Amino acid sequence: MKANKEITIYDIAEKLKYAPSTISRALNDHPSISKNTTLLIKKVAKEMGYRPNSLAASLRNNRSKTIGIMISRINRPFVSSLISGVEETARKSGYNVIISQSNDKYENEVINAQTLYNSRISGLIVSLSMETRKLDHLRPFINQGIPIVFVDRVPDMADAHKVIIDNYTAGYRAAEHLIEQGCTRIAHFAGAQHRNVYSERKKGYMDALKDHNLKADKDFIITFESLSFEEGEKATKKLLDLPIPPDGIFAANDTTAVSAIMYAKKRGIKIPDELAVIGFNDDPIASIVEPALSTVIHPAIKMGQLSAKRILQHAVEKDEEVLFETSILPTELCIRNSSLKNK
Amino acid sequence: MKANKEITIYDIAEKLKYAPSTISRALNDHPSISKNTTLLIKKVAKEMGYRPNSLAASLRNNRSKTIGIMISRINRPFVSSLISGVEETARKSGYNVIISQSNDKYENEVINAQTLYNSRISGLIVSLSMETRKLDHLRPFINQGIPIVFVDRVPDMADAHKVIIDNYTAGYRAAEHLIEQGCTRIAHFAGAQHRNVYSERKKGYMDALKDHNLKADKDFIITFESLSFEEGEKATKKLLDLPIPPDGIFAANDTTAVSAIMYAKKRGIKIPDELAVIGFNDDPIASIVEPALSTVIHPAIKMGQLSAKRILQHAVEKDEEVLFETSILPTELCIRNSSLKNK
Repeated sequence: MKANKEITIYDIAEKLKYAPSTISRALNDHPSISKNTTLLIKKVAKEMGYRPNSLAASLRNNRSKTIGIMISRINRPFVSSLISGVEETARKSGYNVIISQSNDKYENEVINAQTLYNSRISGLIVSLSMETRKLDHLRPFINQGIPIVFVDRVPDMADAHKVIIDNYTAGYRAAEHLIEQGCTRIAHFAGAQHRNVYSERKKGYMDALKDHNLKADKDFIITFESLSFEEGEKATKKLLDLPIPPDGIFAANDTTAVSAIMYAKKRGIKIPDELAVIGFNDDPIASIVEPALSTVIHPAIKMGQLSAKRILQHAVEKDEEVLFETSILPTELCIRNSSLKNK
Repeated sequence: MKANKEITIYDIAEKLKYAPSTISRALNDHPSISKNTTLLIKKVAKEMGYRPNSLAASLRNNRSKTIGIMISRINRPFVSSLISGVEETARKSGYNVIISQSNDKYENEVINAQTLYNSRISGLIVSLSMETRKLDHLRPFINQGIPIVFVDRVPDMADAHKVIIDNYTAGYRAAEHLIEQGCTRIAHFAGAQHRNVYSERKKGYMDALKDHNLKADKDFIITFESLSFEEGEKATKKLLDLPIPPDGIFAANDTTAVSAIMYAKKRGIKIPDELAVIGFNDDPIASIVEPALSTVIHPAIKMGQLSAKRILQHAVEKDEEVLFETSILPTELCIRNSSLKNK
């Protein structure tokens, strides 16, 4: 990978300790930036040899009409729907899509980034691996002004395009639904807490319990490594072996929710009367398990479409002066028989 | 895409109307090729300006350590397992993997081939789209000696690397199992008949019926467009509405088999006593539906591993003198309660 010496708004931002969006606004005389700041930024930009648009655009023109996707695992229905959404929007604009999966390993994500960079993609859509905590591997894209959109599993940084769902509200509503069904001892199957999607779902669950004067028993909150079927069975066994087991489970994905239903049934537990269960994602298995699984519907296709649209806005319009946006899409509860006690 | 004028064994094969493997063997003085043929081939190769190995190898060296995969749809468990197998083997040799899906459209497959070619991959693994009937879009790879391995859904041509399962035997055994359970009116949900995997499963089914003196009623054989859940429901309705409905179904995938079970149950049909069902693939839904679905276990991961191994043999050993191989992997019946009448 060759180093690119072209100065970008990100370099100026780093030097001045301003946000890239502030640099971008100042260079475009945006009224929200004070006159003094604008003058300072323009001066430093000139000193650093910053050339707006033209060269950066020509560097980008060397790219192919391809959007790269870096994703955790393609074997999840949510992920494949998201990719379908990206492809649909990309193809309408004559762009093609290539995909690489990290299998939730940081090391793989780093190699995937290099491969996609070398494939001369003109935009990158990323959903971070479970392990990823640093973002240095995305530097080459940023340095060349190749647009990046983070989707679903996004980093904390403010200066980025993000397409996410409202995980907090979804978690709150899922837990509240179990409370409305009369559950008072509600367990939670949580994902890795440094990933926004899982920490926010848990926070929503905790707040729903608190708002209804219920205690979140720490024995009832189980943090998973990969939210797999096997982990779900083990966790359910652990919960059902407690002296006073839970009467409801909110699982952060459908896989573990389905494994809970199937394991509990084997132990003779009645679903939903003795144990109400709600999952997350509305995977195909949710409608096939008996009783059918209540869940949170995730607008995966729409997230993919919107991510591609953001990339195309920047790749096609060749505008380096990027204003970062976070799009938060709503979710929907889908109540089925696994949690519906009061029929 | 730039044309490459380097002469390959394929060009010589085309000119002389021999198989590429014959050209390859002759140029390497393989004893299976007659002396006269060997002399002729060497003469023509020289006239055409064929240079063994060196230049072709240097062209290939310009490639990245990446294997490209072209696949129908990533949202199938079989496909994602196959990709996992490829990645596992590739990563062990320091190769990375990029994936593109055709969504079963020929047009998309053509564009994907261009994109992967431009990404300078050093090997290509292809499972053909439902629509694909021509292979011209793979020419650029062949011209540059970039190895191609066809997997699962493969073309008819002999001169190619193929990794497949024994679909005929699998179809035969699935139908025979239903016969052994006492079924006498066995229906078949078939996939597109120009794709080897589906035509061979059907042929196995037909022969099993014939060998057991059963008639394959043409009302009982339904050819699907995409083997989707919705199509499965519709087909099951059609079958159950017949004056004398079937007492067994062999479905070419699990999705349609599960939809048959769920639809039939809604109509009050007892599974397996009134209708025994067996699917194909062993998708996760097979163990979740009730009764659990009997199916054919598909060695998807092994197929992926073997495909990657073939690519690496050629990409790493930089040997243009390719001898084409077809690897046929065995399948296994997995009998569960959806077909087990004699418990």
